[in-house]
Amino acid sequence: MTKIIAYNVREDEQPFVEQWSKEHGVQVDSVSQELHDDTVDLAKGYDGVDFKQRTIITQTPNFYKRLHDYGITQLSARSAGIDTVNLQWAKDNGLRVTNVPSYSPEAVAELALTQALQLIRHIPQFNDRLSRNDYVVLGLRSRELTELTVGIIGVGRIGGTLARIFHALGATVIGNDLRGPREDLRGVLTYVSKEELLKRADVVSVHVWGSTENRHLIGQAEFAQLKPTAFFINDSRGPVVDTQALIDALNAKQLAGAALDVVEDETKIFNQRFEGQTPVDHYNQLKQFTNVLLTPHIAFFTDHAVKNMVMQSLDDTLAIITGGHSDHEFKL
Amino acid sequence: MTKIIAYNVREDEQPFVEQWSKEHGVQVDSVSQELHDDTVDLAKGYDGVDFKQRTIITQTPNFYKRLHDYGITQLSARSAGIDTVNLQWAKDNGLRVTNVPSYSPEAVAELALTQALQLIRHIPQFNDRLSRNDYVVLGLRSRELTELTVGIIGVGRIGGTLARIFHALGATVIGNDLRGPREDLRGVLTYVSKEELLKRADVVSVHVWGSTENRHLIGQAEFAQLKPTAFFINDSRGPVVDTQALIDALNAKQLAGAALDVVEDETKIFNQRFEGQTPVDHYNQLKQFTNVLLTPHIAFFTDHAVKNMVMQSLDDTLAIITGGHSDHEFKL
Repeated sequence: MTKIIAYNVREDEQPFVEQWSKEHGVQVDSVSQELHDDTVDLAKGYDGVDFKQRTIITQTPNFYKRLHDYGITQLSARSAGIDTVNLQWAKDNGLRVTNVPSYSPEAVAELALTQALQLIRHIPQFNDRLSRNDYVVLGLRSRELTELTVGIIGVGRIGGTLARIFHALGATVIGNDLRGPREDLRGVLTYVSKEELLKRADVVSVHVWGSTENRHLIGQAEFAQLKPTAFFINDSRGPVVDTQALIDALNAKQLAGAALDVVEDETKIFNQRFEGQTPVDHYNQLKQFTNVLLTPHIAFFTDHAVKNMVMQSLDDTLAIITGGHSDHEFKL
Repeated sequence: MTKIIAYNVREDEQPFVEQWSKEHGVQVDSVSQELHDDTVDLAKGYDGVDFKQRTIITQTPNFYKRLHDYGITQLSARSAGIDTVNLQWAKDNGLRVTNVPSYSPEAVAELALTQALQLIRHIPQFNDRLSRNDYVVLGLRSRELTELTVGIIGVGRIGGTLARIFHALGATVIGNDLRGPREDLRGVLTYVSKEELLKRADVVSVHVWGSTENRHLIGQAEFAQLKPTAFFINDSRGPVVDTQALIDALNAKQLAGAALDVVEDETKIFNQRFEGQTPVDHYNQLKQFTNVLLTPHIAFFTDHAVKNMVMQSLDDTLAIITGGHSDHEFKL
């Protein structure tokens, strides 16, 4: 019988794993450990490996060689981003890598909308006043969506979905993407330069890949171009934003607020509990701002998205190990 | 020169009052007091009265007689609701009453959307965990809008606007309104009985008038019909909801959460600060729930809406006192 090992399976993913296993007559053994050098030997004896990226898998080529030695021919991620995998080393060891590119663009876009609306309506400030038994509204008047320009950096599946949402709600939508204009978004948004986007937008939302090239895509120079009334949202990957530059910009009131579902060094914080402060200083600093909304990487965390991530990654695993094909394979 | 007195003018309304005054060559004197028995004599010597309802104006017909004796012929509210005015007594004293029926349906609908999304994405629960340095996501997985049914009670200007928004976002929208189906919303929502709406909806949002007939429109019997996973939103008027019944239903887990921008006895709380608790016990109780979102009557509080409220009410005042006509006059 075909046997797959699934790493780092959360409690809420398990029912979908079992459903897939039953439907396909394939044994899938879930383990709670993440996939890395110290846990790679658990894959011995299995035909396929399904995993979820949280932390960097490894910095050594040996990790990939060991998988190869166990007869493993693929690594199927239950996520869109696979920035923890070294694709060259994987290829060198005959490992084909798949992701789930589109588990649910709506899940992420709807969180960005939730955050944008909270910032626009000054909800964190009202919550702060409420906590101090202050029920005065003065100073917190809002703008409406038809008066606002939303700038989307990275107009892929998620960015495009968010553009359609804001367009439907009556906002002006502008976008920037290295890949150039998408025909299917004609009439929904206008493509502009990154500089124009940063200068014009009332809400800036980033939806790019977490690649090495995109590290600190938004930093000091970018925050300096924002309107002081602008809101900034990052639901893509933590390293895309220079966190210290954001903190400095917030302190200098170069923008009016921010929402972050991801942040640099988040794996030292998220899915954990702490007695006092977190071990990440910039996160502790961000928590002090009344105009910053923080969530622990929940953009993907919907029933629909989690189900798709589990089912699609196991489909891809099975396709490759039985000699078939996956549309989600990364090519170098 | 024509002279208008404007009662209860907030600091942020004043620039619009001055703009209107300049544009129309009419003197408008703003006072901070609310319009009631003890302040009605301030209207002596003026040609017109512009006011904003917060508390009940009066319970005596004498209030209206005094306005009549001062030569006042109208009362123009800077709000949609005029449930504080006794229309019969006003008519008996030759006072024509206007409201601003549609200062901005978007302002209110966009707040309801903001609240719905926060509840759907479990934002208050994540905020609670964040405050305790708990960054675990387990137990707070969300649903997406395309999977949800939104029920709108009161499909007028605001309810209809909210219906269009949720329809555009892919939700199934059902509505209930005593006035029967609106042709312009065909394809946007399906009209159902109030009972069916309460039983089916994942989000219930109330957008009815604050009339005597609608007092406790939503009470124990209605909350008992909700799905335990449903969210309830009231951005209409406080007395529309039986607050104690809501608290009981929340304690009994008959619903999953609520958002209230208005609440019974809110005039004892809002636009004030307190050293400790508020003087309203049910409000203090509501603040204890992690799954309840509270805001101090901010649905109307956008630039666009406030400007419209000021400008339109002064237009109506001037129209009536110069022998003209207003479309916003209430007929008995």
